[in-house]
Amino acid sequence: MTKHIERQIASLKERILRVGTLVEEAISKSITALINRDVALAQRVMASDEEIDRMEVEVEEECLKILALYQPVAADLRLVVAVLKINNDLERMGDLAKNIAKRVAQLAAGKAYELPPEIRVMAMQAQDMVKQCLDAVVNGDPTLARQVREEDDAVDAARQKIQRRVMQGIKDDPDNVESLLRINSVSKHIERIADMATNIAEDVVYMVEGDIVRHRATD
Amino acid sequence: MTKHIERQIASLKERILRVGTLVEEAISKSITALINRDVALAQRVMASDEEIDRMEVEVEEECLKILALYQPVAADLRLVVAVLKINNDLERMGDLAKNIAKRVAQLAAGKAYELPPEIRVMAMQAQDMVKQCLDAVVNGDPTLARQVREEDDAVDAARQKIQRRVMQGIKDDPDNVESLLRINSVSKHIERIADMATNIAEDVVYMVEGDIVRHRATD
Repeated sequence: MTKHIERQIASLKERILRVGTLVEEAISKSITALINRDVALAQRVMASDEEIDRMEVEVEEECLKILALYQPVAADLRLVVAVLKINNDLERMGDLAKNIAKRVAQLAAGKAYELPPEIRVMAMQAQDMVKQCLDAVVNGDPTLARQVREEDDAVDAARQKIQRRVMQGIKDDPDNVESLLRINSVSKHIERIADMATNIAEDVVYMVEGDIVRHRATD
Repeated sequence: MTKHIERQIASLKERILRVGTLVEEAISKSITALINRDVALAQRVMASDEEIDRMEVEVEEECLKILALYQPVAADLRLVVAVLKINNDLERMGDLAKNIAKRVAQLAAGKAYELPPEIRVMAMQAQDMVKQCLDAVVNGDPTLARQVREEDDAVDAARQKIQRRVMQGIKDDPDNVESLLRINSVSKHIERIADMATNIAEDVVYMVEGDIVRHRATD
């Protein structure tokens, strides 16, 4: 029995990592598509979301199976519950990558536009947070998870700058409002990806230490 | 043991409903504050979010306790897992109500503005979905839950209309861009509240029927 559950837990970790890797790729490709105005790549991102959705359902079924058949306690139980939540957040990150890809396609069909320089920096930071929170999941590393939480402020600050730039851009050229609002949406989606990475990081702290850190200030 | 777990499950249902009621109130008050331009009420909504956050943590701890101590199976297990997810979504809905309230305060401090008429209709529909999904949770009613899913399209359509109106408004009066973008944000938050209600409805179907309906078309 003990060996069985160990094997199940190891395989669950592998599965959630596979979802994480797919989501990481979708985010990275959606940002590349944005920067290179690559509609074909954006369409591939949109198509790949189905695979993420399918894997999310599988991970959840696996968690339920482990809870029902092996009735884990202590650290194993916390891990399964954390995976249930991380899985949910990863799927939503995948949706956000799909939303960014949609905007890329709309932007390409509209008027010419210039990307605010902060958007690349912000996207890199958010991707970094996603990568690190996944590393924290695999390695059960609460120190790394706490670092992810702290990076979220920089992303929020970049988002504020972009929003101000977009508003000024609209005032300067109101006819360009559609493109500018799409860029604004993209920056909002990137901000939410960083928020989800923060959620996952908080779940890692809970998983390892049993400490619920969300809703607590980061200072 | 059986009686113990029954009592625990009943008390868990009560708890999640209390969270739901608080969230429903926060949403309803944030919309009233928006319509009546009532900053004091908006500030009360922002303050009440702490209570929701605190209750979310309690519900999660209760779920963990039930899983560890009573090792539920079948319908009880599905209920506990569904409550874990519903709890998460309710807390996020509370955050969205808080975000709407923040925009109300910002709107009051900015230039005069007119609310698009669709926003009231959209807000009423979303609130209706929240109310119904909570009823579906309490009564374990998958039929009602499936109705909630279908209402989401009307909310999305209203959101599209508001977005078009906001863009036209910005073109007509670019100096009013800040207020118009805040109204746009509010409509986005309402749309996401409806999305979360849809998530909860899907969790109810799963909880009662063991059927995972998310990622499936609503036709």
